[in-house]
This record gives sequence, structure tokens and C-alpha cells, in this order.
Amino acid sequence: MSKSPSLSQLNQPDAFLRRHLGPDEAERRTMLEALGVASLDELIVQTVPPAIRLNRPLELPPALDEQGALARLRGYAQQNQLWTSLIGTGYYGTVTPTVILRNVLENPGWYTAYTPYQPEIAQGRLEALLNFQQLTIDLTGLDLASASLLDEATAAAEAMALAKRVAKAKSNLFFVDVNCHPQTISVVRTRAQAFGFDLVVDELDTLGQHAVFGALLQYPDSRGEVRDLRPLIDGLHARQAIACVAADLLSLLLLTPPGELGADVVLGSAQRFGVPMGYGGPHAAFFATRDEFKRAMPGRIIGVSRDARGNTALRMALQTREQHIRREKANSNVCTSQVLLANIASLYAVYHGPEGLRRIAQRVHRLTAILAAGLFAKGLKRVNAHFFDTLTLEVGAQQAAILERARAARYNLRIVGEDRLGVSLDETSSAETVATLFDIFLGAGHGLSIAVLDAGDLSDGIPGTLQRRSGYLGHPVFNRHHSETEMLRYLRQLEGKDLALNQAMIPLGSCTMKLNATSEMIPITWPEFANLHPFVPREQAEGYRLMIDELESWLRTITGFDAICMQPNSGAQGEYAGLLAIRRYHESHGEGHRNLCLIPSSAHGTNPASAIMASMRVVIVECDKGGNVDLEDLKLKAAEAGAQLACLMITYPSTHGVYEEGIREICEVIHSHGGQVYMDGANLNAQVGLARPADIGADVSHMNLHKTFCIPHGGGGPGMGPIGVKQHLAPFVANHPVIRIEGPNPLNDAVSAAPWGSASILPISWMYIAMMGPQLADATEVAILNANYLAQRLDGAFPVLYRGRNERVAHECILDLRPLKAQTGISEEDVAKRLMDYGFHAPTMSFPVPGTLMVEPTESESLHELDRFVEAMLSIRAEIAKVETGEWPAEDNPLKRAPHTLADVTGPWERPYGIAEAVTPSEHTRAFKYWPAVNRVDNVFGDRNLFCACVPVDEYRE
Amino acid sequence: MSKSPSLSQLNQPDAFLRRHLGPDEAERRTMLEALGVASLDELIVQTVPPAIRLNRPLELPPALDEQGALARLRGYAQQNQLWTSLIGTGYYGTVTPTVILRNVLENPGWYTAYTPYQPEIAQGRLEALLNFQQLTIDLTGLDLASASLLDEATAAAEAMALAKRVAKAKSNLFFVDVNCHPQTISVVRTRAQAFGFDLVVDELDTLGQHAVFGALLQYPDSRGEVRDLRPLIDGLHARQAIACVAADLLSLLLLTPPGELGADVVLGSAQRFGVPMGYGGPHAAFFATRDEFKRAMPGRIIGVSRDARGNTALRMALQTREQHIRREKANSNVCTSQVLLANIASLYAVYHGPEGLRRIAQRVHRLTAILAAGLFAKGLKRVNAHFFDTLTLEVGAQQAAILERARAARYNLRIVGEDRLGVSLDETSSAETVATLFDIFLGAGHGLSIAVLDAGDLSDGIPGTLQRRSGYLGHPVFNRHHSETEMLRYLRQLEGKDLALNQAMIPLGSCTMKLNATSEMIPITWPEFANLHPFVPREQAEGYRLMIDELESWLRTITGFDAICMQPNSGAQGEYAGLLAIRRYHESHGEGHRNLCLIPSSAHGTNPASAIMASMRVVIVECDKGGNVDLEDLKLKAAEAGAQLACLMITYPSTHGVYEEGIREICEVIHSHGGQVYMDGANLNAQVGLARPADIGADVSHMNLHKTFCIPHGGGGPGMGPIGVKQHLAPFVANHPVIRIEGPNPLNDAVSAAPWGSASILPISWMYIAMMGPQLADATEVAILNANYLAQRLDGAFPVLYRGRNERVAHECILDLRPLKAQTGISEEDVAKRLMDYGFHAPTMSFPVPGTLMVEPTESESLHELDRFVEAMLSIRAEIAKVETGEWPAEDNPLKRAPHTLADVTGPWERPYGIAEAVTPSEHTRAFKYWPAVNRVDNVFGDRNLFCACVPVDEYRE
Repeated sequence: MSKSPSLSQLNQPDAFLRRHLGPDEAERRTMLEALGVASLDELIVQTVPPAIRLNRPLELPPALDEQGALARLRGYAQQNQLWTSLIGTGYYGTVTPTVILRNVLENPGWYTAYTPYQPEIAQGRLEALLNFQQLTIDLTGLDLASASLLDEATAAAEAMALAKRVAKAKSNLFFVDVNCHPQTISVVRTRAQAFGFDLVVDELDTLGQHAVFGALLQYPDSRGEVRDLRPLIDGLHARQAIACVAADLLSLLLLTPPGELGADVVLGSAQRFGVPMGYGGPHAAFFATRDEFKRAMPGRIIGVSRDARGNTALRMALQTREQHIRREKANSNVCTSQVLLANIASLYAVYHGPEGLRRIAQRVHRLTAILAAGLFAKGLKRVNAHFFDTLTLEVGAQQAAILERARAARYNLRIVGEDRLGVSLDETSSAETVATLFDIFLGAGHGLSIAVLDAGDLSDGIPGTLQRRSGYLGHPVFNRHHSETEMLRYLRQLEGKDLALNQAMIPLGSCTMKLNATSEMIPITWPEFANLHPFVPREQAEGYRLMIDELESWLRTITGFDAICMQPNSGAQGEYAGLLAIRRYHESHGEGHRNLCLIPSSAHGTNPASAIMASMRVVIVECDKGGNVDLEDLKLKAAEAGAQLACLMITYPSTHGVYEEGIREICEVIHSHGGQVYMDGANLNAQVGLARPADIGADVSHMNLHKTFCIPHGGGGPGMGPIGVKQHLAPFVANHPVIRIEGPNPLNDAVSAAPWGSASILPISWMYIAMMGPQLADATEVAILNANYLAQRLDGAFPVLYRGRNERVAHECILDLRPLKAQTGISEEDVAKRLMDYGFHAPTMSFPVPGTLMVEPTESESLHELDRFVEAMLSIRAEIAKVETGEWPAEDNPLKRAPHTLADVTGPWERPYGIAEAVTPSEHTRAFKYWPAVNRVDNVFGDRNLFCACVPVDEYRE
Repeated sequence: MSKSPSLSQLNQPDAFLRRHLGPDEAERRTMLEALGVASLDELIVQTVPPAIRLNRPLELPPALDEQGALARLRGYAQQNQLWTSLIGTGYYGTVTPTVILRNVLENPGWYTAYTPYQPEIAQGRLEALLNFQQLTIDLTGLDLASASLLDEATAAAEAMALAKRVAKAKSNLFFVDVNCHPQTISVVRTRAQAFGFDLVVDELDTLGQHAVFGALLQYPDSRGEVRDLRPLIDGLHARQAIACVAADLLSLLLLTPPGELGADVVLGSAQRFGVPMGYGGPHAAFFATRDEFKRAMPGRIIGVSRDARGNTALRMALQTREQHIRREKANSNVCTSQVLLANIASLYAVYHGPEGLRRIAQRVHRLTAILAAGLFAKGLKRVNAHFFDTLTLEVGAQQAAILERARAARYNLRIVGEDRLGVSLDETSSAETVATLFDIFLGAGHGLSIAVLDAGDLSDGIPGTLQRRSGYLGHPVFNRHHSETEMLRYLRQLEGKDLALNQAMIPLGSCTMKLNATSEMIPITWPEFANLHPFVPREQAEGYRLMIDELESWLRTITGFDAICMQPNSGAQGEYAGLLAIRRYHESHGEGHRNLCLIPSSAHGTNPASAIMASMRVVIVECDKGGNVDLEDLKLKAAEAGAQLACLMITYPSTHGVYEEGIREICEVIHSHGGQVYMDGANLNAQVGLARPADIGADVSHMNLHKTFCIPHGGGGPGMGPIGVKQHLAPFVANHPVIRIEGPNPLNDAVSAAPWGSASILPISWMYIAMMGPQLADATEVAILNANYLAQRLDGAFPVLYRGRNERVAHECILDLRPLKAQTGISEEDVAKRLMDYGFHAPTMSFPVPGTLMVEPTESESLHELDRFVEAMLSIRAEIAKVETGEWPAEDNPLKRAPHTLADVTGPWERPYGIAEAVTPSEHTRAFKYWPAVNRVDNVFGDRNLFCACVPVDEYRE
């Protein structure tokens, strides 16, 4: 009998690693050979400066396999308790229609897509986002809406900033209704402090006493009160101030929309439109304003334009993207939207339609009316005279007894002081909910009957003057997809227009479009993670606590920091949170005057924007010819700043795709002048396991969990940008007004609405690290291998602009197309669009260097896919040569005409190249053709003729 | 304040109904108007004969909404107990790779597809099925494999039938190894009895004593023994008999394949290749044989052919489809495959590849070797000298104590008699499993160490002569998709080639392609339903019991029958099971001579095939010009049959799509001659809530849960065909040898492997009925409305062949294309293929009447989609007119050239019609083009050059 391998040989500690990595061992050998190195180790030694190397394995627990990790996390999830949460305060139970759950939220065709910068291959999600804007416009009664912000609280802060920008009132004072949600007040306070605005938080009746540039009102307010805001808004307008209204989206189906009351900005959360509460997020915030303020709007706006054939085509309007954030002139650093969640909300509206939505709102309202009638009949005193879905009740000394009964029934109410309780009903509430609430509030034997109350002549909680009269959602898209079959096909049609990671590599420099593994995604829709209200008592969220604590400890191990703040729900939010911590730190020892922020010229546009938001002055440090920070210039400017120096913001490896050798010295220079080092974590994927930001010299850094730690891009959000800080900064990171977080100073205000940001997507990163363990370093090494392989193979055709030591690049590289453009007129944009015809998403275009393409293959792309990309690029280079030689005219060739569509091939064809050359230029495209839905989009036309709502159906017909 | 609607008005008892139905109220009004009736009621009165009407609502519980139904079923699921089941006996724990789980099993792009009769729009799943055949061929060592059968036991029965067909031995005797799995023996016994074969079930050593036409051996056998079968097989061959081997697929990675041992047929279950046990199914069985027997193979075979451009194209070979089952000459009625499950198994192999699979098998085997070494060292006696993954142990009087310890550890072992126990390890087993088994078998303090045993020189359980030497899975498809990213893209590429219900209506007459709602699908992958072994003690399956009992009671209410048998796992299996019950019933009162089965000429091909399998003689009854059964002919033939009359098999409404008026009289005629009425349930969707088979006169009927009750077609399976019977037949339906079912005679043998057939998909039908309640009748009415609307709109262009009372059709209609063909040469096939260019699946072609198309829109299609179909058909009619007038040549027009592909439009185009006419003939196709992957497939070429394995990569290149 032969000897079979032993169990220890057969167990597979690297089972997940091998699924996560693109190239297998044989492929890696091939690539190393092409690079002329004997081993991956040798390549890494050549590439990563020894000064920063972490020369030991990460002290993480051994990797679990997929089933093991899922089982462990399931064990945590089961320690979350799913009570009926009627806490309200901006978060409400909702039903995600299962057809949307399965075919959007759980579908890689939607969740692995990138931000729609390349509109020709993103028309599906752009349409869904346009529907979101239409929904917002219709329900708020305003002219124009954006395609989502991070949460209601930050949207309120953005509203304040917009008010400041556009108000004619000469004032530095902003007013906030004390009955706004507490987290909203906290985030607005943070932002006002950072901007240097004066803030007053008081009862609405005092509003008239203040000379303000704007005010934030809530409708219905946090207590549930529904108040006619017209007089207040009129008063603001009389003072040339701006009226911002935070509104509840579901209530707007029954209430006169704030736009009709005169509001200038209306914002709020779209969570209860089918997006699970998720212990705080992610959810989409909506934001609407008047047409006249459109150019002051924060975040992304989807607009209608036309393509090269004159057909209707959607795209992000007004160039609202990271690279276009106006750096030092910015007043907002928002660049992430909550695309996946905004789309779920808009699709929820598509599925239910105006009548279905109205019925949901009416039912919630009716249940509340029955509850109110019963409770008031029994003598309970109301705080709010009118209501949509929320009652605040004076319960006095009964509070404890009521809460005890609530606990017994596993109900969570909102506790307001020591003598009040709040209750908010929602889509998932029923007559039984109300009956249970009667028992809870009144004890046994109250004798109330839902049926009797329902049959009675209940007074409506909405004042007659605030009953909604205007219609909404008349566009056909909201009126045709109400059967599940129609809805399913609509979702499939939208998905079919888009190119996501499930079809091809998305080689985006600085965006790390790596595998979002299925096993990482599975836990986020477990009810125990999905359906928890963020403000439940901590003991009901024990599973979350265990998971978050562990994830934080792993992130500390990976980055070397001493503390993690999980609150920022985007990378830019992380930057802002980090800079605030630096500011508070300086202030804490009397150096509040330090307000100068050095930023290299190669930096991401969000860096200066974040600095501005933190009221810092930005000074740009030059780069040398090699793309590295000019050390002499840095020293000079740091010295000039002297005692004014607050910090340096720097990305590592640099945005030029190289490991700068001087990074330690750079950090030392800053520290020597009393400054702090903020390390932008965009490129952390090139450090994990090989180097640690804190070791290198960073004091604070954000981690894009949606880049390095596998949270999918969702078509442009959600993101998560927690920050790591060294001990001296730990007291100064964000806390939360409702749920106090251990560690930071308890009085610190919040940077985003929920205590742990978008908590419900943290399981993705937890799963990734749990399944990778110390082998995370392998992923980093293969990411470097893949990038160097691409650089090597493409360099001849498209020169690599910057290289580091031994002529190696880090995990990405910049291809310089400027010489070719000068010779041939073919631009980086033409190449980007032409790649679509080959079935690829374009690399990052003209960032950080105009006229270039930045390519980051990540560790998850196989040699097969890398070679397919290389072949496409070389084939494109050959096409450019035909333009160069004059074989094809400068303006009529497959590059300038790219991308090509079905409309091209079915129309008259009179071009100097053939149809096959146009649409099937490679073997892969002959077998698996992806069709861009529209021809090249005309951005200028769209911005000149800004139209940001659903297109009248006739326009599609013609 | 205005009065708001009351809660009772706002609750939505029809919430799911409105999602399930295609047309909303407004659309229904439009359609009724087009039909000239005032109401749906009026249409139904016109259509359904009053004699059969059920004039009261179905007595079902009120409909639950989606969340309510899910919550209720979740409550049942939680009453299933998930123990570690090491019972083996053909069912094993396995890990479904999550990327396959999410993107295949839970993806409507895969599960809503139809059987690939139209290969041009099914190349994706055809490729996956071809991979399944290649996997089978490679692992069994035989020449040719089919694309799956229903389960291992029925596959064994099919092997016996094939042996009888091809064996040269003159014998009526078949031998079965007594150590085959008990359910296999039972099903083979049933089939042998029905066919009239003699059967001997005995120890293998007695095989030489019998003059047989074939034998069934098991490898490894049910006890786990691995025996060299060569001498036995040689002995069979010496007697010109056929050797059939039931084999374990995972073991074949390490064992010499049966084909190399000389086996003529190898079959078994592919369950453990990633398909959850599911309390018995559904799973795919594999079936392989020698090339010389290919035309005797049962079930579907995928073969390689070429398309009109000469490119490689796959399709079902040898016309193995229902309509082509050779009626009276059949020896098998198999027409359903387990496509979805076969594809999961083949994709599991694609994902793991040969090395990964081998490693899984080695690990299972090594764990078993460690277990064996430990137990034997402690003196336990083995039953099987050799093993792969299963040990049967002589435990004597210790049995009870061991089982008690097993219960405490929540482990299920296989109980064999009173002194033996069996244990089978699997992919989910680990060192901890073995350690627990040591504790269970030996009690505490045994002192065994896994690590020590593993380090020792364990003897291999596989004899040296049976160690596998030959390689497998060398084709690139099994060696390229091992990273999750590559796998995800491969799945997306395959899915992208196919047209499923998520893209368009699939208007298949008699196949009821209605909505498979997401909420219906969600429970099947809950672990409590997915991971139960079918032979666990009943108390661990309490949740299944509750769900199945309730579903049975609902089906009794819907059909009027007294008892339900849930075992048949396809419609054809249901027919067979029903006919067997009739036979047993006749035998039970001394009328075993009744063996004549009347079948109308319009019947489905499976009807006579099933009758033949039940050893009945088939007599055909003619139809009259209106398509109805010729009552006079029926009376004549029934009278002629007299005391020989066993039964009538009849479909209602008829396969001609009409409610025959004479159905009650027909049933009475049969009963008056002592016969039984078998009602084929294919068209039950036109009865539910309006009429009941048992009330009309049927004694037994099967229900296609995959048609009427929303189980998706899965691309060609799974199906479920339970039968309803009247009380007098109830004792005669199938029972089970391992798990006794209450009701039928305990000694009745089984018809399929698992007690309740494909139990894990029953939640789909449970959910459907729970969410519809008595409103099921509304669905039936709308199905009739949709069919009549189509008939009305299409009749002018394509005459409707048969109509019932008031010129109405039932739920489907037959369009007669014969006149057009005679005039123009354009055939029903040309129209079917041309519909693909319009983005539709073709209707049923040439069944039941050659030269026609049968269309069943179902209740789930909206008016919008029906109109889109009508417009496509009318546009096609206009195209035919151009051929008629000579504007287009008879052989060079878009109909004869259909379907059109990307290769057409990128190649030279020299046709009398334009590219746009070819590929975007409608507004819809301009907006959402679906591309058939290949041009029209040449069936004849493929059958003449039969090739049923993966295509060498070079062939794709050229």
C-alpha cells in the first residue's frame, strides 16, 4: 500500500488566500521570470525601501477558511439581540423587497461596480441614481437633487456650508432647532467649529431673535412634532438667510413638502426606503435645493446629456469628482456617495410606485393615530401636538415601570430624560405592535381595542394646512415595474448596461478594485447585523461589539497605531476626522494657532479640501522630477511655517505609484517643527504586512476599508474610512452624543451620524482579515508583482512615468500618454474610451498627472487577465500608429469614435475601418462582447444644459 | 382635519398576489375590453365548463405577506436540528463554494432558465452540462456520459433497463449486490417488478451462480468496502451480461475507475460535489456508459455540433426530449434532468480543479484512515476490510451506549442491525470530527491522539491494485478558474449567453414558466433546510414534517384528492408512480390482469412511455377535428378493453389548450369499465381554484410543482411531481425502505431515492401557496385572460388551431403555422429562431401538433410584455409577407438566417436585408439587445458526428 499524504499536509491554511489572489504559483513564476527576478522576495527587496520594512509577520491569528470564518462570525451575530426597536431618531424598520435584496444588494453585478466616472459603461446605475434624484425632487418639492450624501447628519452640515456660501445675510451665525436629532446637532456643531461658524442650538421660537445666515429646522422634528414652518422660513428669507430643513422621506408622502413651504435646502435620510438600519449604516442621505444654488451643491449630481450620436446619455454633472474637488478653494470634501444604498432606495420607490408608497406612509400614520388615540384616551400626556409616525409622551414617574414592561416584550423605546418616552412606528409595525405598546404603556387590563379605535373617527395627526396636495412620482419608471417579473427584468436591464468586476478587471489607480469575495459579503445581510437600530442598548449589540473590537485590534496590528476611530464613513471623512484630532490635540496644549497644512503637489484633491474644512491654511510642497516630494522645498516650507505648522498630509506609497525613499526623513522634518503627520491611506494596499504607517512616522492615517479591506465600491459607495491614531491623539477623535464610545473624550462631537459609521459593512473587512491572517502580506506582494509585470510589459508602448528604487513601481503605475498625444492627437481619453470596446474599464485618467493613465491591477487579477489587458493596450498602440502614419484620419478612427455601440453597427457605416475592428478588436470580445450602452458622452453639453431629473419618455423615442 | 383611510383599508392581504400577477387592474381592464367582456368573471364563465366548476373559494388559510410567510417558515426551519450527520448511504456533507451558491443557485439568471431545447440561447448552461459529462467521463473511466438523471437509485434502475436492452445474454434475471444502498435496491426492485424482470438481491459471491442479463454492483459498497470488481465483471462479460456499477464520485478521485475495471455502465450521485444534502434532494445523478451503447442511454445528452456559420455549438444530442420520447416504444420515461444541480457539481469541479478535488478526497480518506487506525487499535472489529470514507464496525452490545454518546454530541451514525454501526466522513469533517468519534465509540479516556496517529505510518484503506493511476480533468476549463475572480467571471460569461425569465417572457406551452418569486427561493438555502441528511431520525426533521404536512394538506384542498405522495421527483416519475399505484390497486382485489392503458392521440410522449414502464399495453384513442377526445372512439376502445382496462391517461385542460366539455363523461366511461383515471397534471395551472381533478373524476394525478407551484425550471431541472390519489389508491403509493412513511403500505417499494423526493425545494411551493391562499384562483383566471388576449391578438396573423366553448382557449393556445409554411416555405422553426432576434424564447415547437407553436403566457406576464410579444409576432408575420411576395429570396431572409449573432454583423454582410433589420428589429432590442451566442445549430451534423465531451481548445480558435 502506498503512503498517502498526512492530514497536516492536506489541511489548507491558505485556502482562501489562493482564492483571493489572481495568479497561481505557476503564473507567478512566469511573471517573476519576465521581471528577471528569482523570487517574489527578491522583487520585494528590490522594491520596498529597507528603511520602512516590517521584518516580521503580522501578529494576527492564523487564517480561518471560509466556512470557519463564517461560523465564527455567525457566533458573534447571534450575540446581537433583535428586539422591536421603535427608537426612531432617524432610523426606522423597513422591508427590503426580496427581489431588490437578492438582485441588487447581493448581486456582484451591482455591488462590484465602480463609481460611474466612465458614463458610457455605467448607464444602468446612472439611471437608478437619476431616479433617486427624481424621487428626492418629487418628495421634497425642490428643483434639484444630488445623488446622495453620506448620512443625514453630514448632509445637514453640508447644508449649513451651502447656506454660508449662498446666503446674502452678513452673518457668521447658524441656528439649529434644538429638536433636531441629537446626532445631527453634534455633527453640525463639529463642522461649525471647524469652519469657525458661530452656532446657536435653541427652541425654534427663539429663531427670530438671531441674525443668522441660515437655520436648520427638522420636519417632523425629533420629538415627532409636525409644525408649519412657513412663518419661520419667511422670517429667514426676510433676513436674507437660508432655510435648511431636515425631513423624513416617508412623511413627505403625506406632508406638504418643505419646498412648498419655502425651504431652500431639504435633506434627510433615505434609509427607511428599503435599506436595513444596519446598526447605523450605510444609508443614503438625500439633498435637494433650488436651481439657483446648483453650483454650490455638495457631492455628486447625475445629469442628462447626449452622446456622440445625439442620443440621451447620463453622466455625473458638474465634474463632481475627487480629482475635480477644487483643492484649496473647496468648501466640501465630499466625494463618496452612497450609490448602492441610494439605488436600493430609488428602486424601492420604483417597485412600490406612488400609490404603494403612499399606502405604506398612510398605514404607518394610521397605526400611530390609533396608538395616540388609545394612549391619550387613557390620560397619557403628549409632548407633540401633531405627528406623522412618532409620539413623545410625558410619562413622569411611570417611566421605569413602562421600560420594564418594554424590556419584557423585547421592545426598545426612545428614552427622553427621566420623564418622557418616545415611540416611532414604521413599515414593519402592525396592529399587534400597537396592541403590545398599549400593554407596555398602560399595563394589563387597559381594555383598548385596535379594531374599535380603527373604526372610530380618529383625528389625523397631520394639520390640515400641512396635508400634502401635490402629486409625485408621475414618471413612467415609477409606474411600470410593480409586478415582481417586471421589476426583476428592469433590474437585469440596468445591470446589463454596466461593466463591473464580475465581467472584467477595473484597473483603477488608487482605487484598489480587488476581489470582493462572496464569503465576505454573505454576513452583511444576516438579520442580526442588518436589522439592529444604532441606538439600542449596548448589551443588545454584543455581537457587534465583539466584531468591531476584534477588527479594531487587527487594524491596530496592521497599521501600528494605538487606537482606531470607526466613525468616518468615507475616506474623505476620515481625513477630516484625522485633521480635527490634530487640531484638538494642538489646542489641548495651547497650540491652537497651528493651522498650516503642508500638502505635496501630487496629492489627491480631497487632501486640501479636508484641510480647508478643518480651517487650515494649505501650503503646497513641490515634487521633484522623479515625482518625489522635493525634500528641500519641504524643509523650507516647514521652517517657514514654524510654530504655525499643524501637519503634513502625505500619501504613501505616493500617488505617483512609488515608495518614496525619503518618507522617514519627511516625517522627521515635520515632527521637528512640532507638526503632525497625516498619512492618506489610499495606497495602504501597498503597505499591509510589509510596512506600517505608524512605524514610518505617521501620527494618524485613515484606512479605506472599501479599497484595502475588500468592501466593494457599490457603484460609488458605500465606503468606510476609519482612522488610526497614535496614543497622544487618541483622546481627540470623534465621540457620539447618544452612544458614548470608550476612549475618546466623552464630550467630543461626532463626525458622522452613527457611532461606528457604516457598521453593517464592517463584517466584510472582518471576514477578509480573518480569512487572510498573517498572509495579508502575500496579497501585498502579489499586488506589487502584478503592477511591476504590467509596467514591464507596457513600458515600451506607453512609458511608465515614475519609478522608484531599482526602477520598480509600487502597486500601481502611471502610463504617460502625453508624447503620443503630441505626435498623434490621440489623447488619454481616447485610449480610455477605446478600452471599453475591448471590454475593459478605463484606468484612472489624468490623475495625479494630466495626460496620463494610472493603472492598479491589484493582487486579485490573474496573469490571464493581465495579459488580456496588455494585449488590448498593445493593440490600441498599434491603432494609434495607424493614425500616426495617416492610414486613418485624425478624427475618424476607432480611437476618436470610441466607444462603439450597437447603434453604430446597425446604422449606416461609412468609416475608414470595419465594424469588426470597431466592436470585436480582440479574441475575447468575439467570445464575450460587452456593449457600452451609449457613445462617447458630451459632458460640456450636459453642463451647459443642466437637467438632473428623469427624462421624459418621448425623448427616448424619437 | 381630513379623514384618513382606516387600518383595515390599508392592510394588504393581496400584497403578494399583486406582485405575482403580471397585469395590474388597469391592464386587465384593457385586456378584457379587447376580448369584449365586462369582467374577468364573465370571461371565466365563458371559458370553463360549468360542469367542472368549483363554485366556492379554496379552503386555504388567508394569504400571508412575504415577510409573514418567511417568518412562519423560519419558525418551521428552526425545528429542524442540524446535527453532524455521518450516516453516509449516498448522502454526504459538502461545502457549496459561496461564489457558486450566490451566483448560480441563488441567481435567477441560472435558476429561471428553461430546458435548453433552443440551444442558440442556452450555450452557457449547455457548456456547464458538457463539463458535467466530461467530469463523469473522466472520473468513471467510460466513453460517454449523460447530462444527469434524477438520483442514484433511479439511475440504477435505468442502468438495469439499459442492460436489458443491450445485453446479449438471454435472461430475464438481474442481480443486485445486497450491499448496495437500501434505497437503490428498493427503487430497482420497483422498476424490475414493473418491467417484469426477475430480481435477485444477494451477496456478491453468489453472482456466479446466476444466469443474468446484468448485475448492479456498488463501489465502494454501502458498508464502505472497496473491492476489486474485475473478476466479477469479467464473469459477467463471459456470460454476455452487462456490469453496472454504482460508484461514489469523490472516491473515484483515488480509486481505479470502474470503466478501467471493465464496467459497462457507471452511475451514482454527484451530490457531494457541492450540492447540499437537502433532506434528500434535489441532486444530480451521473450516468456513463460505453460508446457502443450510446443510443440506448436514458435521459439527456449534450453534444457538440456546429452552427450555420460552421462554428462550434452545443445542443442536446439524439433528440432526447419529452416530445421525442418514443411513445409506445419507450423503455424510459425520463425527460427531466437535474440541470441546476448538475451544473453546480460541474462548476464545483471547475472551481477546485483536479488537484483541489484530489486533495479533498485525500483529506477525507486520510481522516478515515486515522479513525480506522484508532478504532482498530482499541479493538473495534471492522466489517469492511478496505475503505475510502466509510467504516462499518461490529460494536455488538456496545451499540446502545455508543449511540447514547453520539446523541449527546449531536452526531448521527448509521445504525446497521442491532450490533453494527456505520460512519462516513466527508468534506466537512475535520480532525475534531475524528476526535469526537473516538470519544463516541470508545468513551472518555481512550488516550488516542490525532496528531500521533497522523504522524504514524498509516496503512491506506485502498488496496494497491485499486489505487487510481490515470489522470483526469486535464481540459483547460478545469484548470483556469481557481481564483474567485476568475470563477465569478466564468459564471457571468456563461450566464450572459443564456436567455432566462429575468430577461424575457418564455411563452412555453405546457411548461408554465411563471414567476419564481425571490421570497419563494430564499428559504431553500437556509442551512436548516439545506443541510439535513434524509435519513436523520424523524424528530430532527420536525420542521420538514410540519412544512410537508401542511403543503400536502394544501395540495389536497387544491386538487380534491385524499392523499398525497411526495416522493416522485419529476412529472414523469409522478406518472410512473401513479400508474404503479393503479396496478397495485387492481392486483389487490384480484384484477392484476387489467393492463391496458388508453391514451388520447394528443398526449404527451411521457404518457405512453410511463405506461410501458408500468408494463401496460397502450391503446391510442383518437381525437376529433376540434382536438377533443373522440368520445365514440373512447367508448368503443374502453368496451373492447373491458376487463383488461387498467386506466385512461388524460391531460386536462387538454394538450390542445382547451377545456374539453366531455371530461366528466370520459371519466365515467372509464369507471364504468372498471378502469381508473390518471390525470396528467401538466396543465393544472388552468384548474387551480376553478376546478379540481378529483371532483372531475380523476383517481390519481401528478402535480408539477415546477410548473404550477413555482419551483423554477433551473435550466432543465429540478422538478417535483408528487401525486394525489383518492382514498382507495392511498395504500398503494410508494413507501421507503429506510424512512417509513405513514399512510401507504409499509412494504411498498420506493420510486425514487429519498422519502419525500426533492424535499429541499418544497419550501418554494409552500411559500407560494402560503402567500396566495384562496387567491390562487385569481392567478388561474389571469392566466386564462392572458392566453385569450394573446389568442385574440394573434389570430389574424397566425390562426389559433383549437378553441373551446365560446371560442375561448384555456391557459394556452396553439398557433397554426402550416398554412404559412405551405405558402412561403417559412416554418415554425424559422419563426421560433427569429423570435430570438427579438429577444424572446421560442414557444413550444411542434407539440402536440407538428408545424405549430404553442404559447402559454402564464399569469405573471404583464400586458406590456404580452404586447411586446404580439408586436414581435406581427412584425415577423410582415417579414414572412416579404418572402411571400418575393421581396426576399426564400432562403436568404431574416427568418431563414435567424438567429443572428455578433459574428454575422462583424463579418462581410451581403444579404438582401440590413443589419439593423437583422439584429434590432424592434424598439426593445435597440434598448436592450440580447445576443444569441451562436447561429442556428445543425442538429443532424451533431448526431452524425456524436461528440459529447469538452471541446479541445484548438477547435474554438481557428
